[in-house]
Amino acid sequence: MGIDTHQQPVVYIRSDCHVAIAEGFNAHAQVEIRTADAAVVAQLVLVTNERLSHEQAALSEAAWQALGCPVEDEIAWLHHAAPVESMSYVRGKLYGQRLDDNSAAAIINDINAGRYSDIQLSAYVAACTGERLDVNETIAITRAMVDSGQRLRWANERVLDKHCVGGLPGNRTTPIVVAIVSANGVLMPKTSSRAITSPAGTADTMEVITPVQLGFEQMQQVVHDVGACLAWGGSVSLSPTDDIIIRIERALDLDSEGQLVASVISKKVAAGATHVLIDIPVGPTAKVRSDDKAHKLRQLLERTGAALGLDVRTVITDGSQPIGRGIGPALEARDVLQVLENDLHAPQDLRQKSLLLAAQLLEMSAVAEPGKGLELAERTLLSGQAWQQFQRICQAQGGFSRPAEAPFKHCVHARHDGVVAYFNNRFLARLAALAGAPNAAQAGIDLHVRLGDEVRAGAALFTLHAEAAGELAYALDFLDGHDDVIRIEEELTC
Amino acid sequence: MGIDTHQQPVVYIRSDCHVAIAEGFNAHAQVEIRTADAAVVAQLVLVTNERLSHEQAALSEAAWQALGCPVEDEIAWLHHAAPVESMSYVRGKLYGQRLDDNSAAAIINDINAGRYSDIQLSAYVAACTGERLDVNETIAITRAMVDSGQRLRWANERVLDKHCVGGLPGNRTTPIVVAIVSANGVLMPKTSSRAITSPAGTADTMEVITPVQLGFEQMQQVVHDVGACLAWGGSVSLSPTDDIIIRIERALDLDSEGQLVASVISKKVAAGATHVLIDIPVGPTAKVRSDDKAHKLRQLLERTGAALGLDVRTVITDGSQPIGRGIGPALEARDVLQVLENDLHAPQDLRQKSLLLAAQLLEMSAVAEPGKGLELAERTLLSGQAWQQFQRICQAQGGFSRPAEAPFKHCVHARHDGVVAYFNNRFLARLAALAGAPNAAQAGIDLHVRLGDEVRAGAALFTLHAEAAGELAYALDFLDGHDDVIRIEEELTC
Repeated sequence: MGIDTHQQPVVYIRSDCHVAIAEGFNAHAQVEIRTADAAVVAQLVLVTNERLSHEQAALSEAAWQALGCPVEDEIAWLHHAAPVESMSYVRGKLYGQRLDDNSAAAIINDINAGRYSDIQLSAYVAACTGERLDVNETIAITRAMVDSGQRLRWANERVLDKHCVGGLPGNRTTPIVVAIVSANGVLMPKTSSRAITSPAGTADTMEVITPVQLGFEQMQQVVHDVGACLAWGGSVSLSPTDDIIIRIERALDLDSEGQLVASVISKKVAAGATHVLIDIPVGPTAKVRSDDKAHKLRQLLERTGAALGLDVRTVITDGSQPIGRGIGPALEARDVLQVLENDLHAPQDLRQKSLLLAAQLLEMSAVAEPGKGLELAERTLLSGQAWQQFQRICQAQGGFSRPAEAPFKHCVHARHDGVVAYFNNRFLARLAALAGAPNAAQAGIDLHVRLGDEVRAGAALFTLHAEAAGELAYALDFLDGHDDVIRIEEELTC
Repeated sequence: MGIDTHQQPVVYIRSDCHVAIAEGFNAHAQVEIRTADAAVVAQLVLVTNERLSHEQAALSEAAWQALGCPVEDEIAWLHHAAPVESMSYVRGKLYGQRLDDNSAAAIINDINAGRYSDIQLSAYVAACTGERLDVNETIAITRAMVDSGQRLRWANERVLDKHCVGGLPGNRTTPIVVAIVSANGVLMPKTSSRAITSPAGTADTMEVITPVQLGFEQMQQVVHDVGACLAWGGSVSLSPTDDIIIRIERALDLDSEGQLVASVISKKVAAGATHVLIDIPVGPTAKVRSDDKAHKLRQLLERTGAALGLDVRTVITDGSQPIGRGIGPALEARDVLQVLENDLHAPQDLRQKSLLLAAQLLEMSAVAEPGKGLELAERTLLSGQAWQQFQRICQAQGGFSRPAEAPFKHCVHARHDGVVAYFNNRFLARLAALAGAPNAAQAGIDLHVRLGDEVRAGAALFTLHAEAAGELAYALDFLDGHDDVIRIEEELTC
């Protein structure tokens, strides 16, 4: 029908057609559509006008794709979708029952097969939010998620990976770390996700520079050729359920701990990693707000990893302000390239953090001896080897291009003299999202100050970037009501 | 656009139109549509074909209604819907924070204004499921729900109401009770809901007999004229949020305790009741499964009622088997009429339970002295006064008609001799729903046995009724996999 309903399969039929009456279909019923070769469960929309005949059913893009793009006059059978049996486990979970291997597998399989409506997916996400998943449930879900998708296997004894639990705008260390580590001959088949509640994920940022939608075979070829990749996980079909769940988490602006651990660990196991370093930024407005919570999360990550045969190490890092200057895909890509090219203006915090993470990974991979990782990482970056390796990866993935600049900008200035005392990471992320990030790649925020900087009234604090005038206006509206995005405190004179 | 998406407002625009590009719209974005006189938040669907011009937006029925049915060429402004601020309270609740008057009011107001998407509504319902709402939160939500709608006020000192927490198929005492009590001059402006997870609500059953979609003024007129009504609550706009939440609960097959109490009490307060009797059926497959849970629910109902100035009494009743013979709107309506008309074949359990509830209400209203209610109730029924009063109510609401019989039937027989030992109320409800109830009013189940009945192999246990062949087949499919709907145990011979 030429109708884009995002991932949701929708089918349109006449409200007065024979099938609707005989089957007793109501609007918004879940209906199974079966052709000779394929089947999909779709939401029913009833059409009351003459656009369709009584013998026609029209499909949304997602439904059409799921049915393998049937030809114009193909015959299809429609009937009520069977009730989703695994929803009884979701209901049980909401009432305080525990998930086990069996129920977790049933839920994940049904989600993966597209049997859950958005309303049902949302209830599952809500049921798993907060502290409601214990370690055994998290392990069960993780295992089910690994089993639901494809799995990569590598010949190497050690296969390295890294991950950041997020919540810190601009924290785009991954491309730099992968370049440094893989330049030293360590296998690093990196898959990344798109943004959940942040203005950019690593996949969004890398997409500005090089194609990230590699297929399963292409990704294996890239890693075979250059020892690493920087691909979007969703396109390789590793832990595919995750992308369905992420869409709902994004709509809810939620990112639950158990689901987060299941998502991270399942993707790493499916990608064939043996050793994983996980960065947990902690700060008052980061995703993880206290050392206590960070230690709990570390434990859950390490135990879940161990249960699935993965060596997980975690580093708890400073999450009190963004890393780098750019927030949003293109602006972060600019920062990444500055560091890799040893540009004098490169953001030093991004450079330093990337070096520390790369150092750890070099030691975990046994390429560097304990305590010698940082030296090797610095040498790899300074010598240009990391930059060359990064370009090799991009070429193998399909080409390299530099980020473009947004057509609409607006600079925000300090209202009075003082010292930069506080960044509200959540407001910054929200502001960048309102400006259009990550869907508008050039949209976002360019920061001009860091914590502790002294500023004069009128000094530039940050610049909003947008691809559309409407989005820029929308971000400015938000600023009107939230002036505490960056706080300038007046200095006390004793 | 002649498109029925149930209650969900949807707007269709061309993916390549100027507004979509300038505003950075994506499929499934929440978009505010504003005309000169009205506004609605709708889900965006992008159309990629020529059905619409670049200057056109098409609306689903729900969106079109919400905008007050704009004329063909009316101009509308589209922009991103503001993020729903109260969702932060829903997220907080999922993370274990408590709701207070302020946050409950914010959530209910936003839901009522149509600002929550289905995904967000589902997360709210999930957040309130199980034992997650304490009494203060329940009171806060109840108060917010009362404030969100219209409120009826009556001159009488005592205004009586009743409610059943449900879960027991066929338990249709309300029409009988209202007729008996109001025949004695007691004011009983009864509003009922449609089915949530059951095959019929009182409103569904009454609709078979008389119009129940009364407006606010019409309902007041009916009560003024005949001292009672039997109307659908949703059409009077009492606690209107409830109907939105019920749609989501139905899709999830969930019915949470706190939300249940908020729903019941808010509707009673809004309907202007001063005294309410609540029936809590308890049984292994009823909604409330243990005396323990029933007592907890009783306490929550009584405390929430008291906080809102309502005198709430509860009766805990037997919920081990359905009440009456029919399950489904038309079949239950038949049972109700048999009792009111003193038909010799009337189901005695339905008659007896209705009399007991009516007796309590007559005593609560001070029309009968303590201990004298049952006698008065029986006299009112036997004398035909209740039947006359029921007909008066129906005439005042717009007419009286008798239920019709379904065109498709299938009788299920006992496989062996034995005694009827167990009814699975949940399976019976599911079976009736699969057969089409409540949307197909004539669909449902007609029971031929009761607990303790001795049956021979081949004896009729129940008859499935359906309005469409497809639905009957679907119910039969379910029976194939679930033969424990009614259990016949062979007698032990010593």
